[in-house]
Amino acid sequence: MITSIEESPLYRIANPRSIAFFGASNNFMRMGSILLSSVEALGYEGAIYPIHPTEKQVLGHKAYRSILDLPEIPDLAIIVLPTAIVCQAMEECGRKGIKHVVVVSGGFKETGAEGAAMQGKLERIADDYGIRFLGPNCLGVANTHLKLNPTPLPTEGPPGFVGLVSQSGSFVTQMFNYLHRHGMGFSTALSVGNGANIDIIECMEYLGACPNTKVIALYIEGITRGRAFMKTARAITPHKPIVALYVGGSEAGKRAGLSHTGSMAGPDEIYDGMFRQSGIIRAQTLTELFDFCLALGTLPRPGGTRVIVQTHSGGPGAAAADSLGRAGLTLPSLSESTIQKLRTIIPKEASTNNPVDRAFAKDLIDDFHKIPDILLQEENADMLLVYFVTPDVFIERGLQNLDLSPETIREEVQKLIIQNVEAFFTLTQKYGKPIIGYTYRSLQEKMVNNLLERGVPIYQGPERAARAMAALLEYHRWRGRH
Amino acid sequence: MITSIEESPLYRIANPRSIAFFGASNNFMRMGSILLSSVEALGYEGAIYPIHPTEKQVLGHKAYRSILDLPEIPDLAIIVLPTAIVCQAMEECGRKGIKHVVVVSGGFKETGAEGAAMQGKLERIADDYGIRFLGPNCLGVANTHLKLNPTPLPTEGPPGFVGLVSQSGSFVTQMFNYLHRHGMGFSTALSVGNGANIDIIECMEYLGACPNTKVIALYIEGITRGRAFMKTARAITPHKPIVALYVGGSEAGKRAGLSHTGSMAGPDEIYDGMFRQSGIIRAQTLTELFDFCLALGTLPRPGGTRVIVQTHSGGPGAAAADSLGRAGLTLPSLSESTIQKLRTIIPKEASTNNPVDRAFAKDLIDDFHKIPDILLQEENADMLLVYFVTPDVFIERGLQNLDLSPETIREEVQKLIIQNVEAFFTLTQKYGKPIIGYTYRSLQEKMVNNLLERGVPIYQGPERAARAMAALLEYHRWRGRH
Repeated sequence: MITSIEESPLYRIANPRSIAFFGASNNFMRMGSILLSSVEALGYEGAIYPIHPTEKQVLGHKAYRSILDLPEIPDLAIIVLPTAIVCQAMEECGRKGIKHVVVVSGGFKETGAEGAAMQGKLERIADDYGIRFLGPNCLGVANTHLKLNPTPLPTEGPPGFVGLVSQSGSFVTQMFNYLHRHGMGFSTALSVGNGANIDIIECMEYLGACPNTKVIALYIEGITRGRAFMKTARAITPHKPIVALYVGGSEAGKRAGLSHTGSMAGPDEIYDGMFRQSGIIRAQTLTELFDFCLALGTLPRPGGTRVIVQTHSGGPGAAAADSLGRAGLTLPSLSESTIQKLRTIIPKEASTNNPVDRAFAKDLIDDFHKIPDILLQEENADMLLVYFVTPDVFIERGLQNLDLSPETIREEVQKLIIQNVEAFFTLTQKYGKPIIGYTYRSLQEKMVNNLLERGVPIYQGPERAARAMAALLEYHRWRGRH
Repeated sequence: MITSIEESPLYRIANPRSIAFFGASNNFMRMGSILLSSVEALGYEGAIYPIHPTEKQVLGHKAYRSILDLPEIPDLAIIVLPTAIVCQAMEECGRKGIKHVVVVSGGFKETGAEGAAMQGKLERIADDYGIRFLGPNCLGVANTHLKLNPTPLPTEGPPGFVGLVSQSGSFVTQMFNYLHRHGMGFSTALSVGNGANIDIIECMEYLGACPNTKVIALYIEGITRGRAFMKTARAITPHKPIVALYVGGSEAGKRAGLSHTGSMAGPDEIYDGMFRQSGIIRAQTLTELFDFCLALGTLPRPGGTRVIVQTHSGGPGAAAADSLGRAGLTLPSLSESTIQKLRTIIPKEASTNNPVDRAFAKDLIDDFHKIPDILLQEENADMLLVYFVTPDVFIERGLQNLDLSPETIREEVQKLIIQNVEAFFTLTQKYGKPIIGYTYRSLQEKMVNNLLERGVPIYQGPERAARAMAALLEYHRWRGRH
């Protein structure tokens, strides 16, 4: 294990002060150009040196015919060239004294015997020069905190707390949008591709030491060094959660992984055991992978399994109760003192069973502050799950009989939303109990979106919330024992 | 069983030519007023008669002090009054000669013994006058094809094909938005509440006969007439699919249902058996309920379990393969002739294994027409699952080096999207094989949204697509045997 983050070979890959770029040109349809334009778009502040045989300038940067001509030794080289000339570029990087490389190009081990031989050659060149590299057949790195994104799609939203190690490049670049819509963002995302030189394990070590990373997500098609993987995971999980999606366990997933990154997958039970024994929380789908990250990255330790459901609609309440039960969580009855406190603010026909169903209420602030405040004081409960459905149209209707202008109504709706979000948010700080929301509406609606931005996890459907809560509990039980 | 839809007691409830409305006033904060304003918003064309003790006009309609004063006998009365005066209103409806009523008001059986007695009284009054009614404690009916929506929230999108019977009113009104975002809509949605007079079974019968309903969705907290339920379901499922969500099977769900609609739930296995023996497809969550409806309402019969995955990213392809495998579906190898045909249009490094991964392509039309067209001809495959991620930004970038104005680029992007959607859509008609999409982006993005609107089912995440495909297969296997 590394003792400081600077020791990791990933350190200068994720935090380069300067980058040489092979394969970018002024032709926008080339992958290299697309990657460089993403780097530009996010505003990376280090030096950029395009290497191009004929162009004088590439996307506004002075271009160099050979890497040997550069005025300095860049921290990182990114290679996006046809397979046949990748080895030559690596050789030139070595001669220049570059120690860190990302090989985006594919056509290696994942394509068969010939490609595997080519990959062997690439590895030997790197070894000869003491180069550490990510790839080939990868998208390398995105470090949002450094404004570094040499991947095809632009990042979205602010820098985040999810550190990703992925055997799929798509799950770096195509997830910027997904994570942002779901209230998250990557701290640093690492795509290992064929993992010829740097594999998943070194990436985990790096993210374990990365201060911006609160939770590590793994996308795995196959692991080669099982023992080292477990050792590294066990060193990390007592202080930082790791969630893993392994797709090689089904026959179909195994074959898909083999033709994608040349990974040799193993039986599902073996991976299950490896994860369990090293405190890694297993996700069954990509959706779960990031659902679990959201809970683990935002919520405090739950005291136990007991959940209160707060709703204003019976069906969503019953669906939540069912989902919680199936996820192994429990719904305690409220104590007499909680019921007494609720009775002063909820209507007579409302239910003080759990789910607490306040039914049709006149004052939003009851939902967003008074009721959850009372429920969070309940000593029989460890977590609170709240149903959110407050479409603008509902608040607007409430204001319509005040005879205001449409403009004023819009402003008032906004003001009310902010006010309620703030009131609700203070509760997440006040009791130290996990508070989770669920909705069937879009996460892009104002109320929910504001809460997500404040770091309150809200899920689409109670089943996703319930499983994330179970994952949170599973992690903290492990952590409590280690 | 009814022999024609007109025989159903629901017929005039779902298709009233005139409605008397108890409980609407000019105070916008009252539930009755909210319901009536939703009716107005959708543009119901029948006569509306508000009944109000003091107001002369309610929301622009002439109001009547008593229902006995109305100039005609309306087809339907909707009662949204305080519990204590509901029986009296029902009595007056009876005296007027009204035969169909919706009782929205709660405070009956779901609140305990006193409420149960009151509900008994309500039932007796209805029986005395030969009235059939939905409720109490329900939201009644929404028939989008008739522009009838007496529920709190406005409908969204065009009329649809999902017929819902729900023991939760929320799952009627709060799902307009959800269904529209997911490419569906209700044909007619029925909220039975406590089911005092009309229960789930009669609603199923009605939707079984309803020509606008292609698939029936059930939300169940507990069934009282098990034998009749199965008999009715078995009469429907050979010609129209039924999907059911039952939340009473877990201890937590059972208790929640009891305090919600006073339902007595039974063990999960019993319901499982009932569903299986009557050809009802069981969903585990509300998300699945409507995911399955989307597949069943839009797709043709699949020939078998064999699925080809078409992707341009390895990770999403492997994740799909894994999800399909777990859902009991298979990924056949492509035949030599299909591979030959593909080879002429996909790059050398692309994979012709299954998933078919065409990697980085220059021409969108390959993805949307040429490649799927070849794959649909494959005789070893029954279904096609396609990964969709074509964010506008990607198409825009491709156009940027053509030196066009931003305005022109926007127009061209739109044009390209429509063109590709059209090209893809023709394939759904050409081969009669189910075609399903998945994405990790928002369903509101142009490309995906256009496809959804054309009736191509696209899911968020391959696991949801895979489970929907398995449900489709399960249903058609049942149908083939009955």
